[in-house]
Amino acid sequence: MTAIRYEHIKTCKQTGARLGILHTPHGSFETPMFMPVGTLATVKTMSPEDLKAMGAGVILSNTYHLWLRPGHEIIREAGGLHKFMNWDQPILTDSGGFQVFSLSDLRRIEEEGVYFRNHMNGDKLFLSPEGAMEIQNALGSDIMMAFDECPPYPAEREYMQRSVDRTTRWAERCLKAHARPDVQGLFGIVQGGEYEDLRRQSANDLVSMDFPGYAVGGLSVGEPKDVMNRVLEFTTPHLPTDKPRYLMGVGSPDSLIDGAIRGIDMFDCVLPTRIARNGTLMTSNGRLVVKNAKYARDFGPIDENCTCYTCQNYSRAYIRHLIKCDETFGIRLTTYHNLHFLLNLMEQVRQAIREDRLGDFREEFFERYGFNKPNAKNF
Amino acid sequence: MTAIRYEHIKTCKQTGARLGILHTPHGSFETPMFMPVGTLATVKTMSPEDLKAMGAGVILSNTYHLWLRPGHEIIREAGGLHKFMNWDQPILTDSGGFQVFSLSDLRRIEEEGVYFRNHMNGDKLFLSPEGAMEIQNALGSDIMMAFDECPPYPAEREYMQRSVDRTTRWAERCLKAHARPDVQGLFGIVQGGEYEDLRRQSANDLVSMDFPGYAVGGLSVGEPKDVMNRVLEFTTPHLPTDKPRYLMGVGSPDSLIDGAIRGIDMFDCVLPTRIARNGTLMTSNGRLVVKNAKYARDFGPIDENCTCYTCQNYSRAYIRHLIKCDETFGIRLTTYHNLHFLLNLMEQVRQAIREDRLGDFREEFFERYGFNKPNAKNF
Ligand SMILES: [Zn+2]
Ligand SMILES: [Zn+2]
Repeated sequence: MTAIRYEHIKTCKQTGARLGILHTPHGSFETPMFMPVGTLATVKTMSPEDLKAMGAGVILSNTYHLWLRPGHEIIREAGGLHKFMNWDQPILTDSGGFQVFSLSDLRRIEEEGVYFRNHMNGDKLFLSPEGAMEIQNALGSDIMMAFDECPPYPAEREYMQRSVDRTTRWAERCLKAHARPDVQGLFGIVQGGEYEDLRRQSANDLVSMDFPGYAVGGLSVGEPKDVMNRVLEFTTPHLPTDKPRYLMGVGSPDSLIDGAIRGIDMFDCVLPTRIARNGTLMTSNGRLVVKNAKYARDFGPIDENCTCYTCQNYSRAYIRHLIKCDETFGIRLTTYHNLHFLLNLMEQVRQAIREDRLGDFREEFFERYGFNKPNAKNF
Repeated sequence: MTAIRYEHIKTCKQTGARLGILHTPHGSFETPMFMPVGTLATVKTMSPEDLKAMGAGVILSNTYHLWLRPGHEIIREAGGLHKFMNWDQPILTDSGGFQVFSLSDLRRIEEEGVYFRNHMNGDKLFLSPEGAMEIQNALGSDIMMAFDECPPYPAEREYMQRSVDRTTRWAERCLKAHARPDVQGLFGIVQGGEYEDLRRQSANDLVSMDFPGYAVGGLSVGEPKDVMNRVLEFTTPHLPTDKPRYLMGVGSPDSLIDGAIRGIDMFDCVLPTRIARNGTLMTSNGRLVVKNAKYARDFGPIDENCTCYTCQNYSRAYIRHLIKCDETFGIRLTTYHNLHFLLNLMEQVRQAIREDRLGDFREEFFERYGFNKPNAKNF
């Protein structure tokens, strides 16, 4: 028995985007789906009830951060991450790999794993495929990620070839070390940078191991948007159609739509929550920086087309005041809106797939949001 | 027609504490009542729905802070403070006097008002009885406070005499300047430090002006607890029984009970919210510092006798983790619990008054909380 099952509903005739349902031990959610990030066992400022009210059917949490604080043994003793944080719906945990490569500048990659420094206090640490599995088994997430190497962008072809080979060997060790495949589904991560043959090799290597799902890693690391789209175009065709596909670290509205069009089912990113803390909002008419002076006496909602708690009850003037005063409730309100915006966007994407018009939806959305303008910001 | 009406329900035979209902233009609440403080038009980290769910029937907001940010004219344009912050129940605003005297070290008191410096940027400011009324009229609070001088503790008798005289003259100017007595009730503030005759004089001066309510000011400013209690004992008898009495700046559980016993109906304090942000909690068994290492693997609730959202859903271990990681949701949870604790304490106080056993309740509560121990902390 496998913990994770992807149910394909239909494919958009206009774009090839997939509509589906992902079944997990803690319930099911429709795809394509955006997953809010709860790094330290909390989606910053949000309660589980807030997340459910806005339609978040699955959240992501970070293995590396939870390993350091409070430590995975404490979460195991609590009965797992779901109980610890009072979240009874699906959770995906990453492998810690990305943080090892992005947060620590002192690191040494060996075949057995990675030696690096704690990003907070400089302590020596070591993480391996087996370690990443042990931690995620303790956390009890519904979806676990294999421990991979995350190469920088750009990376030389020769380096990338060695890295892909190692990520494949590490994926085999992850599968072997994973102690609870009946209740936690392990996804493999396809690497290979912008090299088509390496992406194909990585995908084929992993697919031959028959993971219950696959991620596309090593994107959204600084490459241009057209590179990301091209990589997806030559990567997803090598992934099986009966398994979910997860594009890691992507959360700007344009990339969510373009990813879905290229056959992606799941996305995560800190973008909507991170920019919310600075008062930057995604709206149906584009980006809005609520701290701007012009909103001081603007008593309308953040987004007049939005049905979220924030937009139904509070004005730009009030939210601007709160954010300028560093009042947490302001960040609650902006975080709620941004997450609601992306979750609602994905619902619109799913509806467009149902109606075979995701291509049209993309054009309308891009035009209205401002992505078609010269020098458009990417969120 | 007056905006505020106090309805007396009964007096506790054992203690003389008063049970009542305060009627305001935005609804009624039972007294004795504790009022959460929302300094900048937000009770830090809480939503209006959170506050209603925990039974907060009235909140307080600070005139001085709102005058500086976002400015009372913006709030007036928003339709008043209730609309601006999405709170449709009673609001009390202070006069700004306390902040002028506590936040600014450069100040000059003249008969016309006080010259002082903005506590954030040093700008020169001036606040007078007329100014405090104009701001509060713009805010539209249900209960406004007269602009008084808040003398330090201790203060020389001669200084206090001059101060009380001035506060009386300022109170007359406030009454005269108050533009909306039909929809906003103005309370006078009794001063006089620890001097019985000055408190009597101040009370008599104000009562002769027939305010719809009276506050006892100049307490909880560093004086010992027995001094506070003695001042209340010789002050409240000079206040009319058909008007509400408000003890400003008091929020420790022992002082709430002891204040009610001395005839006080309303209290406010930042204490429960301020200590919550540092992870200090009030529980039925006393003070609890959740950051302590001993709670790292404690999967029980903050207070096993508490019915609040926090205690029903989260463990000490989880809350400790959040607070140690500076995660806002941890502060949401501790703030919620502490406010719920004090609101529930006041409900217990009201029930004890109904049953003529507030004295017995005080003994039981003090013993269990630890107030009877040598060197007991005062919250
Ligand atoms: Zn909204
Ligand atoms: Zn509680």
